[in-house]
Amino acid sequence: MMFIINQGVSDMQVQLFRDEFEEMGYRTIFCPGADMTAIGLIGNTNALEVSHIVETHEIIRSGTRVSEPYKLVNRLFHPNNESITVNKVVFGEGHFQVISGPCSVESEEQIIEVARSIKKSGATVLRGGAYKPRSSPYSFQGLHEEGLKLLSLAKKETGLPLITEMTNINQLKYFDDVDIIQIGARNMQNFDLLKEVGHCRKPILLKRGLYNTIDEFLMSAEYIMAGGNENIIFCERGIRTIETLTRNTLDISAIPLLKRKSFLPVIIDPSHASGIRSLVAPLSRAAIAVGADGLMIETHNNPSKALCDGAQSLDLIQFEELMKDIKRRMEFEGKSN
Amino acid sequence: MMFIINQGVSDMQVQLFRDEFEEMGYRTIFCPGADMTAIGLIGNTNALEVSHIVETHEIIRSGTRVSEPYKLVNRLFHPNNESITVNKVVFGEGHFQVISGPCSVESEEQIIEVARSIKKSGATVLRGGAYKPRSSPYSFQGLHEEGLKLLSLAKKETGLPLITEMTNINQLKYFDDVDIIQIGARNMQNFDLLKEVGHCRKPILLKRGLYNTIDEFLMSAEYIMAGGNENIIFCERGIRTIETLTRNTLDISAIPLLKRKSFLPVIIDPSHASGIRSLVAPLSRAAIAVGADGLMIETHNNPSKALCDGAQSLDLIQFEELMKDIKRRMEFEGKSN
Amino acid sequence: MMFIINQGVSDMQVQLFRDEFEEMGYRTIFCPGADMTAIGLIGNTNALEVSHIVETHEIIRSGTRVSEPYKLVNRLFHPNNESITVNKVVFGEGHFQVISGPCSVESEEQIIEVARSIKKSGATVLRGGAYKPRSSPYSFQGLHEEGLKLLSLAKKETGLPLITEMTNINQLKYFDDVDIIQIGARNMQNFDLLKEVGHCRKPILLKRGLYNTIDEFLMSAEYIMAGGNENIIFCERGIRTIETLTRNTLDISAIPLLKRKSFLPVIIDPSHASGIRSLVAPLSRAAIAVGADGLMIETHNNPSKALCDGAQSLDLIQFEELMKDIKRRMEFEGKSN
Amino acid sequence: MMFIINQGVSDMQVQLFRDEFEEMGYRTIFCPGADMTAIGLIGNTNALEVSHIVETHEIIRSGTRVSEPYKLVNRLFHPNNESITVNKVVFGEGHFQVISGPCSVESEEQIIEVARSIKKSGATVLRGGAYKPRSSPYSFQGLHEEGLKLLSLAKKETGLPLITEMTNINQLKYFDDVDIIQIGARNMQNFDLLKEVGHCRKPILLKRGLYNTIDEFLMSAEYIMAGGNENIIFCERGIRTIETLTRNTLDISAIPLLKRKSFLPVIIDPSHASGIRSLVAPLSRAAIAVGADGLMIETHNNPSKALCDGAQSLDLIQFEELMKDIKRRMEFEGKSN
Repeated sequence: MMFIINQGVSDMQVQLFRDEFEEMGYRTIFCPGADMTAIGLIGNTNALEVSHIVETHEIIRSGTRVSEPYKLVNRLFHPNNESITVNKVVFGEGHFQVISGPCSVESEEQIIEVARSIKKSGATVLRGGAYKPRSSPYSFQGLHEEGLKLLSLAKKETGLPLITEMTNINQLKYFDDVDIIQIGARNMQNFDLLKEVGHCRKPILLKRGLYNTIDEFLMSAEYIMAGGNENIIFCERGIRTIETLTRNTLDISAIPLLKRKSFLPVIIDPSHASGIRSLVAPLSRAAIAVGADGLMIETHNNPSKALCDGAQSLDLIQFEELMKDIKRRMEFEGKSN
Repeated sequence: MMFIINQGVSDMQVQLFRDEFEEMGYRTIFCPGADMTAIGLIGNTNALEVSHIVETHEIIRSGTRVSEPYKLVNRLFHPNNESITVNKVVFGEGHFQVISGPCSVESEEQIIEVARSIKKSGATVLRGGAYKPRSSPYSFQGLHEEGLKLLSLAKKETGLPLITEMTNINQLKYFDDVDIIQIGARNMQNFDLLKEVGHCRKPILLKRGLYNTIDEFLMSAEYIMAGGNENIIFCERGIRTIETLTRNTLDISAIPLLKRKSFLPVIIDPSHASGIRSLVAPLSRAAIAVGADGLMIETHNNPSKALCDGAQSLDLIQFEELMKDIKRRMEFEGKSN
Repeated sequence: MMFIINQGVSDMQVQLFRDEFEEMGYRTIFCPGADMTAIGLIGNTNALEVSHIVETHEIIRSGTRVSEPYKLVNRLFHPNNESITVNKVVFGEGHFQVISGPCSVESEEQIIEVARSIKKSGATVLRGGAYKPRSSPYSFQGLHEEGLKLLSLAKKETGLPLITEMTNINQLKYFDDVDIIQIGARNMQNFDLLKEVGHCRKPILLKRGLYNTIDEFLMSAEYIMAGGNENIIFCERGIRTIETLTRNTLDISAIPLLKRKSFLPVIIDPSHASGIRSLVAPLSRAAIAVGADGLMIETHNNPSKALCDGAQSLDLIQFEELMKDIKRRMEFEGKSN
Repeated sequence: MMFIINQGVSDMQVQLFRDEFEEMGYRTIFCPGADMTAIGLIGNTNALEVSHIVETHEIIRSGTRVSEPYKLVNRLFHPNNESITVNKVVFGEGHFQVISGPCSVESEEQIIEVARSIKKSGATVLRGGAYKPRSSPYSFQGLHEEGLKLLSLAKKETGLPLITEMTNINQLKYFDDVDIIQIGARNMQNFDLLKEVGHCRKPILLKRGLYNTIDEFLMSAEYIMAGGNENIIFCERGIRTIETLTRNTLDISAIPLLKRKSFLPVIIDPSHASGIRSLVAPLSRAAIAVGADGLMIETHNNPSKALCDGAQSLDLIQFEELMKDIKRRMEFEGKSN
């Protein structure tokens, strides 16, 4: 960290400031100038906050963090891209995966029909919600353990690996058959949950919060990795902005930025990002072109009867059509499953 | 709910639409017109989503929700203001309470000194964080159970009721001495936690999420109340906007709006809303004038050494000064402790 | 427009409401129901505001606009896509154009060198700022008329049509050689200027405001078209959100949405959207894939010496490289210049 | 400005960097350290952009601006508060003024009735729109010159000084009787207009843009002051956020911040900030308490017939009631007209 000292500060005051931080184990460097003076702080400054130091020390005018506050997920200390393999399905370099399935698991018939169909169309991972965080207590909350059992049946039937959302670590005992644990947007800063899944060894799909910056997204991944779990896939799913025609605003720039700042795979969820069925195809095309490692797309065997988010779900025929285009584009980009 | 039907739709299609919802138990009304036609849906539509129905029925052009999706917290069904009493401290009609204390409990000496001083200055509830949700895993996370024990000592010493944040229902067993459970901004849509504290009988202070609308804030209170806990205090603490000089933007309009839409007490946290010590006093003055039922203000015996959020904490003398002004204003507004 | 009437309203009150609007020339339809009642308003409601009517009539509980407030730019009344031809360069169906050049025209040498180079690389329109809206009065404000003369020289030299920003209608007399008038983001709701360029016959490139919704964007185009100028190209250039790593957040979903709601061409400006040079290429790839009709990309012969926005400008070699990729992708998408 | 240099940079590269800026007239200071090194840039850096320099110089890792980019409006160089006197009405220190009147001037009868009534209730300045920037070309655009004539009549009748919005400098010839020129929110970054009113000598009321930061607000005032006009009053009128119940979100914290950073008067417009009549009174109370120098409140003799923004206008009786409360509060705060 670098700090600028106010004019007219005495040598004594500067020395007291340096002493304070040297006692805490930092080294300080002093850069005197004609009109202004700077002090640098060397060491692990992750636990310090610039604004705090500026506000609590009268002699300091302003400050800036020189290094980024995350380190385990930082490309600076880990220059190569990392791939994550889930039941032979590879997320990362040279691969492009499409996760698909219904917002909620509703019945055996539904999930089996969807799983068979999306597999045939080319999806490589099956999604389906069993524990649903809904903003109204009166909305359908998911089938819970029963939903997980139905997902297991669909996995047995099709061989597709499973991803589903966990909202509480107490659910872990039911997750034996689940291959990727999803942490939803509203839990991106549920730090208790992040710590707990950091102790799992299953891969984590971490969705960006509706109002979180990319730096906060990286810090949440850092929480998981600090617990020992290095298998993290980022999922950009739109942020809340002043635009109201779409449910959220897909931040497509987040993909190249996350890839520059970290070494982990990044996918896009065009269904939740837009909330509009007819935008899923164009946003999926943009996702491949911008360099994402995959997509998560909601499908349903009967969207008009879906118990949640039907407005953004593709039906199985629409998904089949989209996958034909996606495969053509994967080939163009030199990517395979 | 009201829906507008596209032009050129056949009577048969309209009948099918009406049948679908009448089978679900709703009554429908049909309003034919020259250039457009409307259908109304009567019954408990809380579980329905307008956008879903519009997108999944081709004959429908647009729709609108006539009634608000929350009912237990809705003033419409509960016209009188409700007060909440905590250890003889009353939140609501005619009262104004100031909650104060440090961001984090750090030591016995600290919390006792702060508690004694703020009580003398006029605070009526003691706050102090034991479980701290921090955006970096490397920041100080609180003293946990040890912090709660220190809070109990301060309560014993001063008689002040206690408020502290709960981040996980497993912490409940340590909360015997706590009088108000705080649900933090990042957990406002942690629906699992909301359901669980809905089964407690302790009052809940619910902080508004950084990116949540007032309607979502009301829905989160509805979650708690649906569990049986009717003692909820709203806390406006700023939302994230494009302004970056302040940590968040205090949404002062939320106070009269929450009071119009619900019957529950509402307080303001000017410390987290601004993140800047010198704004705490002017925002506190605005809070009383706009009609809030209280304040939550961070104080510390030595802000420059605070382990978190020192930049926004008042020292004990500054708090004493502020309280003199607040008392004068309470008298002007006809409010008492 | 549809309005829902409060319960317990008398027939007399309803009649007065209907009379008020029928006197204004609207027809009303009345839809009585058991628990609620609706009134529809038929006619040109563009000049009415729903919220105004609700707030000013006690008998009304809520209202909704059935039709969109723009009509000239609305696809509903103009189902076919429209192309715009500028000096033989076609924007729209089956075409993809790349506009390029420096943020500011700085010297004859600079603009001629850039124009020659980008033409060789494949750009089809030359951009260059002469009147620069800058947030600081102390920043370089452009060369004004002198800049326009230099642009004319570059056009004469290369044959490339010109686009440049107009900030004031008084500049029109210098715009003889300019082929497309750009209305900048900060002027998207400068309604005086919109009306004035509505009386020109030159094509208008209308940039989206930093904080404007897509509906407002369409209304600003409606302003221009209401003046008689039907040659409008939309340009999405990012909106301001909570993300601060990028200068703005490119709203990629705006492209399919604008194409669904209107019939006009839409291009993307990845340079201003991100403010970061290394994001220009990935965002350009996303733009073609999502269905945009073109790109506007900042280039400079010496970005490190650029008088404005150098950080986002490509140098001429980087642009040449990017254009090779863009041509390959245009072919894949079946588009040509 | 301070810059941090990447590790492993040669002395030669550093020297080239220093030479570049010393040739431009800056002085540089060099602060070597063990693990990192800093360079400071001394001089008038207002025309430089930190991000530009960082992106265009490979040896630089990060940078920060030490001083604020505005100087004429900066309290640092002008420590005392400044008052602005308009026809004996004083904005600033110890005073509190209420500007009131209709959104639009509609007829002689209307403006005279409103002017007489608000004067009697205690308003000290009359507002009324003649040139109305409306987001739809089909909405009422104001009476233009005719409206200004009607305002003059009302001024003659009541003696109240006038404020009205200017959207184009060509209107200046009609502004002889106008005492304060209002620059509307959508024109806050219409830099051409700012420069032009900078050459007037009439006081300017500058409204904050819907999506502009406080720093940008200050820079727009700097534009006006750079032209020689030092009589500027800031008006906070809400910014656009994710909250949709209110038209905008009143940023109440902007008042103490603007007063800390500048020396100019600041008022609040609660009518446009909320767009809801019932919020005008509570927000007005908060405005006085937080330290604003005045209010701008919309009134109408018949809000339900108002040609614009009726939903937020008080009727003349409501305004009279509000003014009684405001006077009581002015006395409490030690402020007078």
